[in-house]
Amino acid sequence: MKVFDTPGFPNPLRVRIALAEKGLFEQVEFIRVDLPGAEHKQPAFLAINPLGTVPVLQLDDGTYISECTAITEYLDNQYGEPQLTGRTPKEKAIVHMMHKRAESELADPVGIYFHHSTPGLGAGLQPYKSPEWAGRVEWGNRQRDKAVAGMHYFDRVLREQPYVAGEQFSMADITVFAGLLFAGFASVAIPQECTALLAWQTKVAQRPSVKRVS
Amino acid sequence: MKVFDTPGFPNPLRVRIALAEKGLFEQVEFIRVDLPGAEHKQPAFLAINPLGTVPVLQLDDGTYISECTAITEYLDNQYGEPQLTGRTPKEKAIVHMMHKRAESELADPVGIYFHHSTPGLGAGLQPYKSPEWAGRVEWGNRQRDKAVAGMHYFDRVLREQPYVAGEQFSMADITVFAGLLFAGFASVAIPQECTALLAWQTKVAQRPSVKRVS
Repeated sequence: MKVFDTPGFPNPLRVRIALAEKGLFEQVEFIRVDLPGAEHKQPAFLAINPLGTVPVLQLDDGTYISECTAITEYLDNQYGEPQLTGRTPKEKAIVHMMHKRAESELADPVGIYFHHSTPGLGAGLQPYKSPEWAGRVEWGNRQRDKAVAGMHYFDRVLREQPYVAGEQFSMADITVFAGLLFAGFASVAIPQECTALLAWQTKVAQRPSVKRVS
Repeated sequence: MKVFDTPGFPNPLRVRIALAEKGLFEQVEFIRVDLPGAEHKQPAFLAINPLGTVPVLQLDDGTYISECTAITEYLDNQYGEPQLTGRTPKEKAIVHMMHKRAESELADPVGIYFHHSTPGLGAGLQPYKSPEWAGRVEWGNRQRDKAVAGMHYFDRVLREQPYVAGEQFSMADITVFAGLLFAGFASVAIPQECTALLAWQTKVAQRPSVKRVS
């Protein structure tokens, strides 16, 4: 397998943690994509992912899989018993529900804020990620506020259970963790009163998979 | 099982088609939620889905599952062989990849356009879905343009294969179909040159599941 990505960025981190959780990290060839140089928005990369996003997983048969959810589903179903996406139909449903909330309430809004209301990854990428328009910065700021509300939501969840989707670490935890990493990168602080979220973040950061890829 | 939703709306349609595809439609008790009246944004509904969205599936054990992806995963895994979310790890990955693209490139942008740049569902819901801010209408219009670009993308996909994720009808088709229904509701026309997409839409509209729930 090959993974096209850039280390240190939030979505690549999601797949790298999943690979490490499954014991697959050493079996993958990583191919670095120049994100600040907008390499992923050029024709050569768009041929492997027409949406121009990283990471992309290339299977040994040549198939390209993009989107973190899809890649994580593949890795979790293909290699050993599914641990990250749930074992039973009910577990799978709850993982997907909480994972979607992690995207819509935290990771996605942070990304919009970063690309619209801050210098983002610089002038090379900005025309692709956030072309100029009048409401650009205000839109980003509103999404920052949504992300902070999302932090409070996940704090409430984690006051009731050890992991985002219940008793077990899952894809939903990976997405929240990467969202918080991105928030830190964009200088959006976790509110101090979110003590359960902060304690969970510390706990997840100690996982061997996360330490391996960080 | 119970489903909290409102017939005729795009996300409820997604789960209703999935239920009909699995032969489960008659086994569900539907509980109508007053969307224009913003019932789903009030405390009683937020207690079952803190994000305030429909549809929500309630299992017989009382568990609430929201988010269309999660509900479809549950129905498909719990009842018979999975048909809508893929059978093999590779099939599952491709369905999730194309389903995510259907959301991000079509269904979600149409929804943003509808709620930000048109009267949406009216004054009762507008403060929740799209509070006033200076760039609101322009943001919606940009998302409308993104949705039209998404139609062209799915047209290209459907020139190469019969269904959105390949040879078989899947969750990804349901999401594109509902996105196009929403687009029609918002008066965003499918470009006439998207002949493969238009032919696919006609074909999907003839499925017994779609005719059953429409």
